[in-house]
Amino acid sequence: FRLCSTQPLEVDASTFEKACDETLESLTEYFEQIVEEADNLKTADVAYTSGVLTVNLGPEYGTYVINRQSPNRQIWLSSPVSGPKRYDFVVRDQSWVYKHDGRTLHRLLQDEISRIVKIDVNFADCSYGKL
Amino acid sequence: FRLCSTQPLEVDASTFEKACDETLESLTEYFEQIVEEADNLKTADVAYTSGVLTVNLGPEYGTYVINRQSPNRQIWLSSPVSGPKRYDFVVRDQSWVYKHDGRTLHRLLQDEISRIVKIDVNFADCSYGKL
Repeated sequence: FRLCSTQPLEVDASTFEKACDETLESLTEYFEQIVEEADNLKTADVAYTSGVLTVNLGPEYGTYVINRQSPNRQIWLSSPVSGPKRYDFVVRDQSWVYKHDGRTLHRLLQDEISRIVKIDVNFADCSYGKL
Repeated sequence: FRLCSTQPLEVDASTFEKACDETLESLTEYFEQIVEEADNLKTADVAYTSGVLTVNLGPEYGTYVINRQSPNRQIWLSSPVSGPKRYDFVVRDQSWVYKHDGRTLHRLLQDEISRIVKIDVNFADCSYGKL
């Protein structure tokens, strides 16, 4: 049996909910830390409520929205840099993968956020944070 | 001079911010009213914070996210029914238009939400709510 990247394993509801909650909570904490440490994000704010993480980096950089989409068992991302993407949970890798390019949510955040802030960031430290 | 639907007028920042704020606040109030009145949305919740309106209709229906994207002067929508879209403010029509099909944000919400809830809805009553 071989897992094809275009056909991620369908996760069961409880695995999805647990992984999703931990992923979003861990990202919330990490974004709060980044916003606190980054000198160029003085007007930024981070909010997490009912499955939706909002990272408003200020009028210059725009807003990231990362949210649970339960009917699809996906995490949906809206990036001011690259637009929208939908991530499936791949059980084998314990990570959230965009099936069209095989890249993880945390890889995208690592690449985009490290270009915006001047400090070192490492999204691999987050829960389910495979890069 | 004729306004082409694929080339919406570039709005100035203050016009954008005012229209955007009023649009999102008005939608927040209207979604709160819908969620209160609709019998099939008992677990739903509506939240509006720092330019992001989140309408979680519950695990069966998913989550709408409608947010200000200041660098682009757009409103971005993420719909559990139809996915993502970006809306430009068209000054002439005083409405938010998806340039690829010329339809307004409120038209999409009218069509999708009226299929989800069993009550009559009319998004034309909202600010900048042209259908």
